[in-house]
Amino acid sequence: MIAGFVQFCPVRYDVQANVAQVERLLAGVKADLLVLPELANSGYMYASSRDLAPHSESANGNGPFLSALRRMARAVGGLIITGLSERTQDGLYNSAVTVDTTGIVAHYRKTHLFADEQDLFLPGDTGFSVFDYAGARIGMMVCFDWYFPESARTLALRGAQIIAHPSNLVLPHCQTAMVTRSLENRVFTITTNRWGTESLGEEGASQRSLTFTGASQVLTPLGERLTQASVTGDAVYLVEIDPAQADNKHPTPRNHLLHNRRPDMYA
Amino acid sequence: MIAGFVQFCPVRYDVQANVAQVERLLAGVKADLLVLPELANSGYMYASSRDLAPHSESANGNGPFLSALRRMARAVGGLIITGLSERTQDGLYNSAVTVDTTGIVAHYRKTHLFADEQDLFLPGDTGFSVFDYAGARIGMMVCFDWYFPESARTLALRGAQIIAHPSNLVLPHCQTAMVTRSLENRVFTITTNRWGTESLGEEGASQRSLTFTGASQVLTPLGERLTQASVTGDAVYLVEIDPAQADNKHPTPRNHLLHNRRPDMYA
Repeated sequence: MIAGFVQFCPVRYDVQANVAQVERLLAGVKADLLVLPELANSGYMYASSRDLAPHSESANGNGPFLSALRRMARAVGGLIITGLSERTQDGLYNSAVTVDTTGIVAHYRKTHLFADEQDLFLPGDTGFSVFDYAGARIGMMVCFDWYFPESARTLALRGAQIIAHPSNLVLPHCQTAMVTRSLENRVFTITTNRWGTESLGEEGASQRSLTFTGASQVLTPLGERLTQASVTGDAVYLVEIDPAQADNKHPTPRNHLLHNRRPDMYA
Repeated sequence: MIAGFVQFCPVRYDVQANVAQVERLLAGVKADLLVLPELANSGYMYASSRDLAPHSESANGNGPFLSALRRMARAVGGLIITGLSERTQDGLYNSAVTVDTTGIVAHYRKTHLFADEQDLFLPGDTGFSVFDYAGARIGMMVCFDWYFPESARTLALRGAQIIAHPSNLVLPHCQTAMVTRSLENRVFTITTNRWGTESLGEEGASQRSLTFTGASQVLTPLGERLTQASVTGDAVYLVEIDPAQADNKHPTPRNHLLHNRRPDMYA
Protein backbone atom coordinates (compact mmCIF):
# COMPACT_ATOMS: atom_id res chain seq x y z
CA MET A 1 0.00 0.00 0.00
CA ILE A 2 1.34 3.44 -0.94
CA ALA A 3 0.43 6.00 1.67
CA GLY A 4 1.59 9.48 2.50
CA PHE A 5 0.89 13.06 3.36
CA VAL A 6 0.37 16.35 1.56
CA GLN A 7 1.88 19.11 3.68
CA PHE A 8 1.01 22.60 2.56
CA CYS A 9 0.00 26.05 3.80
CA PRO A 10 -3.74 26.59 3.39
CA VAL A 11 -4.74 30.18 2.76
CA ARG A 12 -7.72 31.72 4.47
CA TYR A 13 -10.84 33.02 2.77
CA ASP A 14 -9.98 31.27 -0.51
CA VAL A 15 -11.12 27.68 -0.94
CA GLN A 16 -10.26 27.76 -4.63
CA ALA A 17 -6.65 28.70 -3.91
CA ASN A 18 -6.39 25.64 -1.66
CA VAL A 19 -7.98 23.42 -4.29
CA ALA A 20 -5.49 24.72 -6.83
CA GLN A 21 -2.51 24.22 -4.53
CA VAL A 22 -3.46 20.64 -3.66
CA GLU A 23 -4.05 19.93 -7.33
CA ARG A 24 -0.61 21.26 -8.20
CA LEU A 25 1.00 19.15 -5.50
CA LEU A 26 -0.82 16.00 -6.61
CA ALA A 27 0.01 16.32 -10.30
CA GLY A 28 1.22 12.89 -11.37
CA VAL A 29 1.02 11.42 -7.87
CA LYS A 30 -0.31 7.86 -7.54
CA ALA A 31 -1.16 6.55 -4.08
CA ASP A 32 -3.63 4.43 -2.17
CA LEU A 33 -3.99 6.85 0.73
CA LEU A 34 -3.12 10.53 1.05
CA VAL A 35 -3.70 12.66 4.13
CA LEU A 36 -4.07 16.45 4.00
CA PRO A 37 -3.86 18.85 7.00
CA GLU A 38 -6.68 19.91 9.30
CA LEU A 39 -8.95 22.63 7.88
CA ALA A 40 -7.31 22.29 4.49
CA ASN A 41 -10.23 24.02 2.80
CA SER A 42 -10.39 27.09 5.01
CA GLY A 43 -7.22 27.78 6.92
CA TYR A 44 -7.26 28.16 10.68
CA MET A 45 -7.74 31.56 12.33
CA TYR A 46 -11.12 33.24 11.99
CA ALA A 47 -12.69 35.86 14.22
CA SER A 48 -16.02 34.05 14.34
CA SER A 49 -17.96 31.14 12.95
CA ARG A 50 -19.88 33.69 10.89
CA ASP A 51 -16.62 34.68 9.17
CA LEU A 52 -15.64 31.05 8.70
CA ALA A 53 -18.99 29.74 7.46
CA PRO A 54 -18.69 31.04 3.86
CA HIS A 55 -15.40 29.14 3.51
CA SER A 56 -16.89 25.94 4.92
CA GLU A 57 -18.99 23.29 3.24
CA SER A 58 -21.16 20.27 3.82
CA ALA A 59 -19.51 16.90 4.33
CA ASN A 60 -21.79 15.41 1.67
CA GLY A 61 -18.96 15.61 -0.84
CA ASN A 62 -20.63 18.01 -3.25
CA GLY A 63 -19.10 21.29 -2.06
CA PRO A 64 -16.25 22.98 -3.91
CA PHE A 65 -13.40 21.51 -1.88
CA LEU A 66 -14.58 17.93 -1.51
CA SER A 67 -15.84 17.64 -5.07
CA ALA A 68 -12.42 18.77 -6.26
CA LEU A 69 -10.79 16.17 -4.00
CA ARG A 70 -13.07 13.49 -5.43
CA ARG A 71 -11.83 14.41 -8.88
CA MET A 72 -8.22 14.29 -7.62
CA ALA A 73 -8.87 10.95 -5.95
CA ARG A 74 -9.66 9.51 -9.35
CA ALA A 75 -6.35 10.72 -10.75
CA VAL A 76 -4.43 9.59 -7.66
CA GLY A 77 -6.11 6.19 -7.76
CA GLY A 78 -6.88 6.02 -4.04
CA LEU A 79 -8.35 7.71 -1.00
CA ILE A 80 -7.82 11.28 0.10
CA ILE A 81 -8.37 12.18 3.74
CA THR A 82 -8.68 15.85 4.53
CA GLY A 83 -9.41 18.15 7.38
CA LEU A 84 -12.51 20.20 6.58
CA SER A 85 -14.34 23.14 8.06
CA GLU A 86 -17.75 21.50 7.85
CA ARG A 87 -20.92 23.55 7.62
CA THR A 88 -24.21 22.18 8.96
CA GLN A 89 -27.56 23.66 9.92
CA ASP A 90 -26.50 23.53 13.57
CA GLY A 91 -23.14 25.19 13.10
CA LEU A 92 -19.61 24.33 12.06
CA TYR A 93 -17.53 21.26 12.88
CA ASN A 94 -13.78 20.76 12.64
CA SER A 95 -13.99 17.54 10.66
CA ALA A 96 -12.00 14.97 8.78
CA VAL A 97 -13.46 13.43 5.68
CA THR A 98 -12.30 10.51 3.55
CA VAL A 99 -13.20 10.72 -0.12
CA ASP A 100 -12.75 8.50 -3.08
CA THR A 101 -13.90 9.27 -6.57
CA THR A 102 -17.45 8.12 -5.84
CA GLY A 103 -18.02 10.25 -2.76
CA ILE A 104 -17.67 10.19 1.01
CA VAL A 105 -16.11 7.05 2.48
CA ALA A 106 -15.89 8.16 6.12
CA HIS A 107 -16.56 11.22 8.23
CA TYR A 108 -15.30 12.29 11.65
CA ARG A 109 -15.89 15.40 13.75
CA LYS A 110 -13.05 16.48 16.07
CA THR A 111 -13.72 15.31 19.62
CA HIS A 112 -11.29 17.54 21.53
CA LEU A 113 -11.34 21.16 20.39
CA PHE A 114 -8.18 23.20 20.97
CA ALA A 115 -8.22 26.64 22.56
CA ASP A 116 -10.20 29.21 20.53
CA GLU A 117 -11.55 26.54 18.18
CA GLN A 118 -14.27 26.36 20.81
CA ASP A 119 -15.55 29.73 19.55
CA LEU A 120 -15.83 28.50 15.97
CA PHE A 121 -16.84 24.85 16.10
CA LEU A 122 -19.29 22.56 17.84
CA PRO A 123 -17.76 19.65 19.76
CA GLY A 124 -17.58 16.58 17.55
CA ASP A 125 -20.50 14.18 17.92
CA THR A 126 -19.44 11.32 15.66
CA GLY A 127 -16.99 9.52 17.92
CA PHE A 128 -14.10 7.52 16.50
CA SER A 129 -14.74 4.89 13.87
CA VAL A 130 -12.81 2.63 11.55
CA PHE A 131 -13.52 1.73 7.93
CA ASP A 132 -12.13 -0.83 5.51
CA TYR A 133 -10.35 0.07 2.32
CA ALA A 134 -8.41 -2.25 0.03
CA GLY A 135 -7.83 -4.69 2.85
CA ALA A 136 -6.72 -2.02 5.35
CA ARG A 137 -8.61 -0.68 8.35
CA ILE A 138 -8.32 3.07 8.69
CA GLY A 139 -9.43 5.51 11.39
CA MET A 140 -9.26 9.27 11.68
CA MET A 141 -8.51 11.72 14.44
CA VAL A 142 -7.75 15.45 14.22
CA CYS A 143 -4.81 17.39 15.68
CA PHE A 144 -5.36 17.98 19.45
CA ASP A 145 -7.06 14.59 19.74
CA TRP A 146 -3.47 13.29 19.98
CA TYR A 147 -3.11 14.78 23.45
CA PHE A 148 -5.75 12.41 24.82
CA PRO A 149 -4.47 8.82 24.71
CA GLU A 150 -8.09 7.68 24.62
CA SER A 151 -8.40 8.85 21.00
CA ALA A 152 -5.83 6.60 19.37
CA ARG A 153 -6.64 3.85 21.87
CA THR A 154 -10.28 3.87 20.88
CA LEU A 155 -9.35 3.65 17.20
CA ALA A 156 -6.98 0.75 17.92
CA LEU A 157 -9.60 -1.08 19.96
CA ARG A 158 -11.97 -0.66 17.03
CA GLY A 159 -9.43 -2.29 14.75
CA ALA A 160 -7.56 0.56 13.09
CA GLN A 161 -4.29 -0.43 11.45
CA ILE A 162 -3.67 3.11 10.21
CA ILE A 163 -4.59 6.34 11.97
CA ALA A 164 -4.88 9.32 9.65
CA HIS A 165 -4.24 12.47 11.65
CA PRO A 166 -4.86 15.79 9.86
CA SER A 167 -3.37 18.52 12.03
CA ASN A 168 -2.65 22.22 12.43
CA LEU A 169 -0.06 21.88 15.19
CA VAL A 170 1.28 24.80 17.16
CA LEU A 171 2.62 23.04 20.27
CA PRO A 172 6.03 21.35 19.98
CA HIS A 173 5.18 17.96 21.47
CA CYS A 174 2.99 16.09 19.05
CA GLN A 175 5.46 14.68 16.55
CA THR A 176 7.36 12.98 19.39
CA ALA A 177 4.28 11.94 21.34
CA MET A 178 2.92 10.23 18.24
CA VAL A 179 5.81 7.78 18.55
CA THR A 180 4.22 6.70 21.82
CA ARG A 181 0.74 6.66 20.24
CA SER A 182 1.98 4.36 17.47
CA LEU A 183 3.88 2.13 19.84
CA GLU A 184 1.30 1.76 22.59
CA ASN A 185 -1.30 0.77 20.01
CA ARG A 186 0.93 -0.82 17.37
CA VAL A 187 -0.63 1.20 14.57
CA PHE A 188 0.68 3.21 11.65
CA THR A 189 0.09 6.92 12.13
CA ILE A 190 0.12 9.56 9.42
CA THR A 191 0.26 13.01 10.97
CA THR A 192 -0.13 15.65 8.31
CA ASN A 193 0.62 19.09 9.60
CA ARG A 194 0.42 22.43 7.84
CA TRP A 195 3.07 25.12 7.92
CA GLY A 196 3.05 28.93 7.91
CA THR A 197 1.87 31.70 10.19
CA GLU A 198 -1.57 33.26 10.55
CA SER A 199 -2.54 36.38 12.46
CA LEU A 200 -5.84 37.72 13.63
CA GLY A 201 -6.80 41.21 14.77
CA GLU A 202 -5.31 44.63 14.23
CA GLU A 203 -1.55 44.96 14.32
CA GLY A 204 -0.39 45.68 17.85
CA ALA A 205 -0.92 44.32 21.30
CA SER A 206 -4.26 42.67 20.56
CA GLN A 207 -3.04 40.84 17.46
CA ARG A 208 -2.68 37.10 17.89
CA SER A 209 -0.44 34.94 15.71
CA LEU A 210 0.04 31.23 15.35
CA THR A 211 2.92 29.48 13.64
CA PHE A 212 2.29 25.93 12.54
CA THR A 213 5.11 23.47 12.94
CA GLY A 214 5.13 21.34 9.76
CA ALA A 215 7.25 18.19 10.16
CA SER A 216 4.48 15.90 8.93
CA GLN A 217 5.41 12.28 9.44
CA VAL A 218 4.56 8.62 8.94
CA LEU A 219 5.29 6.23 11.83
CA THR A 220 5.21 2.44 11.92
CA PRO A 221 3.49 0.34 14.59
CA LEU A 222 6.91 0.15 16.30
CA GLY A 223 7.13 3.92 16.45
CA GLU A 224 9.76 4.11 13.72
CA ARG A 225 9.65 7.30 11.65
CA LEU A 226 9.45 6.24 8.02
CA THR A 227 9.57 9.76 6.68
CA GLN A 228 9.22 13.33 7.89
CA ALA A 229 8.82 16.66 6.11
CA SER A 230 10.66 19.81 7.07
CA VAL A 231 9.08 22.41 9.32
CA THR A 232 8.12 24.64 6.42
CA GLY A 233 7.34 24.02 2.78
CA ASP A 234 4.84 22.20 0.64
CA ALA A 235 5.61 18.53 0.16
CA VAL A 236 4.10 15.22 -0.84
CA TYR A 237 5.83 12.26 0.83
CA LEU A 238 4.91 8.71 -0.05
CA VAL A 239 5.97 5.47 1.63
CA GLU A 240 5.09 1.85 1.11
CA ILE A 241 3.49 0.27 4.15
CA ASP A 242 2.01 -3.12 4.94
CA PRO A 243 -1.05 -2.46 7.13
CA ALA A 244 -0.97 -6.08 8.36
CA GLN A 245 2.14 -5.18 10.40
CA ALA A 246 -0.28 -3.42 12.72
CA ASP A 247 -1.96 -6.74 13.51
CA ASN A 248 1.05 -7.86 15.55
CA LYS A 249 0.10 -6.58 19.00
CA HIS A 250 2.82 -8.59 20.78
CA PRO A 251 5.59 -6.55 22.39
CA THR A 252 6.70 -9.95 23.69
CA PRO A 253 5.45 -13.35 22.54
CA ARG A 254 3.53 -13.57 25.80
CA ASN A 255 2.01 -10.10 25.83
CA HIS A 256 -0.77 -8.59 23.75
CA LEU A 257 -1.27 -4.84 23.97
CA LEU A 258 -5.02 -4.96 23.74
CA HIS A 259 -5.86 -8.31 25.32
CA ASN A 260 -3.64 -7.57 28.34
CA ARG A 261 -5.67 -4.47 29.15
CA ARG A 262 -7.55 -4.74 32.43
CA PRO A 263 -10.45 -2.27 32.21
CA ASP A 264 -11.72 -3.27 35.66
CA MET A 265 -8.53 -1.69 37.05
CA TYR A 266 -8.89 1.62 35.20
CA ALA A 267 -10.66 4.81 36.21
CA MET B 1 10.16 18.63 48.10
CA ILE B 2 13.36 16.66 47.52
CA ALA B 3 12.67 13.57 45.42
CA GLY B 4 14.82 11.16 43.50
CA PHE B 5 15.78 7.67 42.55
CA VAL B 6 18.17 4.98 43.72
CA GLN B 7 19.43 3.11 40.66
CA PHE B 8 21.34 -0.05 41.44
CA CYS B 9 21.82 -3.65 40.37
CA PRO B 10 19.94 -6.02 42.68
CA VAL B 11 21.54 -9.42 43.09
CA ARG B 12 19.49 -12.58 43.07
CA TYR B 13 19.09 -15.00 45.94
CA ASP B 14 20.53 -12.53 48.44
CA VAL B 15 18.14 -10.07 50.07
CA GLN B 16 20.78 -9.03 52.60
CA ALA B 17 23.19 -8.03 49.85
CA ASN B 18 20.51 -5.75 48.43
CA VAL B 19 19.76 -4.28 51.84
CA ALA B 20 23.47 -3.60 52.30
CA GLN B 21 23.85 -2.01 48.86
CA VAL B 22 20.86 0.31 49.30
CA GLU B 23 22.12 1.22 52.74
CA ARG B 24 25.56 2.10 51.32
CA LEU B 25 23.96 4.23 48.62
CA LEU B 26 21.74 6.07 51.09
CA ALA B 27 24.48 6.91 53.58
CA GLY B 28 24.04 10.57 54.39
CA VAL B 29 21.19 11.06 51.92
CA LYS B 30 18.28 13.27 53.01
CA ALA B 31 15.13 13.29 50.90
CA ASP B 32 11.36 13.42 51.08
CA LEU B 33 10.80 10.71 48.48
CA LEU B 34 13.13 8.05 47.10
CA VAL B 35 12.18 5.45 44.52
CA LEU B 36 14.01 2.12 44.16
CA PRO B 37 13.77 -0.29 41.18
CA GLU B 38 11.24 -3.06 40.66
CA LEU B 39 11.99 -6.28 42.58
CA ALA B 40 14.75 -4.54 44.51
CA ASN B 41 14.70 -7.22 47.19
CA SER B 42 15.01 -10.25 44.92
CA GLY B 43 16.38 -9.49 41.49
CA TYR B 44 14.45 -10.49 38.39
CA MET B 45 15.05 -13.84 36.70
CA TYR B 46 13.94 -16.97 38.53
CA ALA B 47 13.08 -20.37 37.13
CA SER B 48 9.92 -20.66 39.19
CA SER B 49 7.90 -19.02 41.91
CA ARG B 50 9.13 -21.79 44.19
CA ASP B 51 12.70 -20.59 43.61
CA LEU B 52 11.69 -16.99 44.12
CA ALA B 53 9.52 -17.44 47.22
CA PRO B 54 12.39 -17.69 49.75
CA HIS B 55 13.70 -14.33 48.54
CA SER B 56 10.26 -12.73 48.80
CA GLU B 57 8.44 -11.35 51.80
CA SER B 58 5.12 -10.08 53.05
CA ALA B 59 4.11 -6.50 52.33
CA ASN B 60 3.33 -6.01 56.04
CA GLY B 61 6.66 -4.24 56.48
CA ASN B 62 8.17 -6.69 58.94
CA GLY B 63 10.22 -8.81 56.53
CA PRO B 64 13.98 -8.36 56.17
CA PHE B 65 13.92 -6.00 53.20
CA LEU B 66 11.07 -3.73 54.19
CA SER B 67 12.06 -3.52 57.82
CA ALA B 68 15.52 -2.43 56.71
CA LEU B 69 13.96 0.18 54.43
CA ARG B 70 11.86 1.46 57.32
CA ARG B 71 15.06 1.95 59.28
CA MET B 72 16.62 3.74 56.31
CA ALA B 73 13.51 5.89 55.88
CA ARG B 74 14.13 7.26 59.36
CA ALA B 75 17.68 8.24 58.44
CA VAL B 76 16.61 9.67 55.08
CA GLY B 77 13.79 11.61 56.68
CA GLY B 78 11.15 10.70 54.10
CA LEU B 79 9.39 7.99 52.15
CA ILE B 80 11.01 5.10 50.32
CA ILE B 81 9.12 3.43 47.49
CA THR B 82 10.44 0.07 46.37
CA GLY B 83 9.62 -2.74 44.05
CA LEU B 84 9.13 -5.93 46.03
CA SER B 85 8.70 -9.60 45.32
CA GLU B 86 5.75 -10.01 47.67
CA ARG B 87 4.90 -13.36 49.23
CA THR B 88 1.32 -14.20 50.21
CA GLN B 89 -0.58 -17.37 51.01
CA ASP B 90 -1.99 -17.33 47.48
CA GLY B 91 1.33 -16.86 45.73
CA LEU B 92 3.71 -14.08 44.76
CA TYR B 93 2.97 -10.58 43.49
CA ASN B 94 5.25 -8.15 41.70
CA SER B 95 4.52 -5.25 44.01
CA ALA B 96 5.47 -1.71 44.89
CA VAL B 97 5.44 -0.65 48.51
CA THR B 98 5.81 2.75 50.13
CA VAL B 99 7.38 2.76 53.56
CA ASP B 100 8.13 5.34 56.15
CA THR B 101 9.72 4.72 59.48
CA THR B 102 6.42 3.66 61.06
CA GLY B 103 5.48 1.07 58.47
CA ILE B 104 3.59 0.64 55.22
CA VAL B 105 2.12 3.81 53.72
CA ALA B 106 0.85 2.35 50.44
CA HIS B 107 0.86 -0.91 48.53
CA TYR B 108 0.34 -1.73 44.86
CA ARG B 109 0.46 -5.01 42.92
CA LYS B 110 1.57 -4.80 39.28
CA THR B 111 -1.43 -4.82 36.98
CA HIS B 112 0.26 -5.71 33.68
CA LEU B 113 2.77 -8.54 33.98
CA PHE B 114 5.56 -8.68 31.41
CA ALA B 115 6.48 -11.84 29.51
CA ASP B 116 7.68 -14.64 31.79
CA GLU B 117 6.69 -12.75 34.93
CA GLN B 118 3.39 -14.49 34.32
CA ASP B 119 5.06 -17.73 35.46
CA LEU B 120 6.21 -16.22 38.76
CA PHE B 121 3.55 -13.76 39.86
CA LEU B 122 -0.20 -13.47 40.20
CA PRO B 123 -1.82 -10.59 38.30
CA GLY B 124 -2.12 -7.56 40.56
CA ASP B 125 -5.46 -7.16 42.28
CA THR B 126 -5.05 -3.83 44.07
CA GLY B 127 -5.66 -1.45 41.19
CA PHE B 128 -4.07 1.99 41.11
CA SER B 129 -4.43 4.31 44.07
CA VAL B 130 -3.10 7.61 45.31
CA PHE B 131 -2.03 8.64 48.80
CA ASP B 132 -1.14 11.92 50.46
CA TYR B 133 2.25 12.68 51.91
CA ALA B 134 3.54 16.04 53.11
CA GLY B 135 1.05 17.88 50.92
CA ALA B 136 1.80 15.81 47.81
CA ARG B 137 -0.38 13.17 46.16
CA ILE B 138 1.59 10.14 45.06
CA GLY B 139 0.69 7.04 43.06
CA MET B 140 2.63 3.96 42.04
CA MET B 141 2.88 1.83 38.94
CA VAL B 142 5.47 -0.80 38.05
CA CYS B 143 7.57 -1.14 34.90
CA PHE B 144 5.46 -2.57 32.02
CA ASP B 145 2.40 -0.71 33.32
CA TRP B 146 3.90 2.23 31.37
CA TYR B 147 3.00 0.56 28.07
CA PHE B 148 -0.70 0.90 28.85
CA PRO B 149 -1.72 4.56 28.87
CA GLU B 150 -4.60 3.61 31.13
CA SER B 151 -2.18 3.11 34.07
CA ALA B 152 -0.82 6.63 34.35
CA ARG B 153 -4.15 8.04 33.25
CA THR B 154 -5.95 6.28 36.08
CA LEU B 155 -3.45 7.61 38.60
CA ALA B 156 -3.84 11.14 37.21
CA LEU B 157 -7.62 10.91 37.32
CA ARG B 158 -7.32 9.84 40.94
CA GLY B 159 -5.29 12.93 41.69
CA ALA B 160 -1.65 11.84 41.49
CA GLN B 161 0.82 14.69 41.20
CA ILE B 162 3.79 12.31 41.26
CA ILE B 163 3.94 8.82 39.75
CA ALA B 164 6.61 6.60 41.29
CA HIS B 165 7.58 3.98 38.73
CA PRO B 166 9.91 1.21 39.94
CA SER B 167 11.13 -0.65 36.86
CA ASN B 168 13.32 -3.42 35.47
CA LEU B 169 13.29 -2.25 31.86
CA VAL B 170 14.63 -4.31 28.99
CA LEU B 171 12.83 -2.69 26.03
CA PRO B 172 14.29 0.57 24.70
CA HIS B 173 11.13 2.66 24.55
CA CYS B 174 10.06 3.49 28.08
CA GLN B 175 12.28 6.40 28.98
CA THR B 176 11.05 8.32 25.93
CA ALA B 177 7.44 7.20 26.22
CA MET B 178 7.35 8.45 29.81
CA VAL B 179 7.76 11.96 28.39
CA THR B 180 4.36 11.44 26.80
CA ARG B 181 2.96 9.92 29.99
CA SER B 182 4.09 12.97 31.99
CA LEU B 183 2.82 15.40 29.41
CA GLU B 184 -0.56 13.86 28.66
CA ASN B 185 -1.33 13.76 32.39
CA ARG B 186 0.71 16.74 33.57
CA VAL B 187 2.33 14.74 36.35
CA PHE B 188 5.85 14.28 37.65
CA THR B 189 7.17 10.79 36.94
CA ILE B 190 10.07 9.11 38.65
CA THR B 191 11.12 6.03 36.70
CA THR B 192 13.75 4.11 38.62
CA ASN B 193 15.34 1.42 36.52
CA ARG B 194 17.95 -1.16 37.47
CA TRP B 195 21.03 -1.99 35.47
CA GLY B 196 23.06 -5.16 34.85
CA THR B 197 22.50 -8.50 33.13
CA GLU B 198 20.90 -11.65 34.45
CA SER B 199 20.89 -15.12 32.87
CA LEU B 200 18.81 -18.17 33.49
CA GLY B 201 19.42 -21.77 32.48
CA GLU B 202 22.48 -23.75 31.51
CA GLU B 203 25.03 -22.04 29.31
CA GLY B 204 24.23 -22.64 25.66
CA ALA B 205 21.27 -22.42 23.37
CA SER B 206 18.65 -22.66 26.11
CA GLN B 207 20.15 -19.95 28.28
CA ARG B 208 18.16 -16.74 28.41
CA SER B 209 19.68 -13.40 29.34
CA LEU B 210 18.21 -9.98 30.00
CA THR B 211 20.10 -6.70 30.14
CA PHE B 212 18.40 -3.90 32.00
CA THR B 213 18.70 -0.44 30.56
CA GLY B 214 19.35 1.91 33.50
CA ALA B 215 18.84 5.56 32.60
CA SER B 216 16.52 6.23 35.51
CA GLN B 217 14.91 9.64 35.23
CA VAL B 218 12.71 12.31 36.77
CA LEU B 219 10.32 14.17 34.45
CA THR B 220 8.23 17.26 35.07
CA PRO B 221 4.52 17.62 34.22
CA LEU B 222 5.68 19.29 30.98
CA GLY B 223 7.74 16.24 30.05
CA GLU B 224 11.03 17.95 30.79
CA ARG B 225 13.79 15.63 31.97
CA LEU B 226 15.12 17.05 35.23
CA THR B 227 17.79 14.41 35.63
CA GLN B 228 18.78 11.04 34.21
CA ALA B 229 21.27 8.38 35.29
CA SER B 230 23.60 6.57 32.94
CA VAL B 231 22.70 3.18 31.50
CA THR B 232 24.86 1.34 34.01
CA GLY B 233 26.04 2.07 37.50
CA ASP B 234 24.66 2.66 40.95
CA ALA B 235 23.47 6.18 41.58
CA VAL B 236 21.29 8.31 43.80
CA TYR B 237 19.94 11.38 42.02
CA LEU B 238 17.93 14.00 43.87
CA VAL B 239 15.99 16.94 42.51
CA GLU B 240 13.79 19.57 44.06
CA ILE B 241 10.26 19.52 42.75
CA ASP B 242 7.07 21.41 43.52
CA PRO B 243 4.23 18.87 43.32
CA ALA B 244 1.69 21.69 42.89
CA GLN B 245 3.05 22.23 39.37
CA ALA B 246 1.14 19.07 38.50
CA ASP B 247 -2.13 20.80 39.36
CA ASN B 248 -1.92 22.95 36.23
CA LYS B 249 -3.75 20.78 33.71
CA HIS B 250 -4.05 23.57 31.14
CA PRO B 251 -2.05 23.06 27.93
CA THR B 252 -3.85 26.23 26.87
CA PRO B 253 -5.84 28.62 29.09
CA ARG B 254 -9.00 27.21 27.52
CA ASN B 255 -8.15 23.50 27.74
CA HIS B 256 -7.99 21.15 30.69
CA LEU B 257 -6.45 17.73 30.12
CA LEU B 258 -8.80 15.89 32.40
CA HIS B 259 -11.99 17.94 32.17
CA ASN B 260 -11.84 17.96 28.35
CA ARG B 261 -11.94 14.17 28.25
CA ARG B 262 -15.11 12.82 26.68
CA PRO B 263 -15.56 9.28 28.01
CA ASP B 264 -18.81 8.82 26.09
CA MET B 265 -16.70 8.95 22.93
CA TYR B 266 -14.15 6.34 24.04
CA ALA B 267 -14.17 2.57 23.61
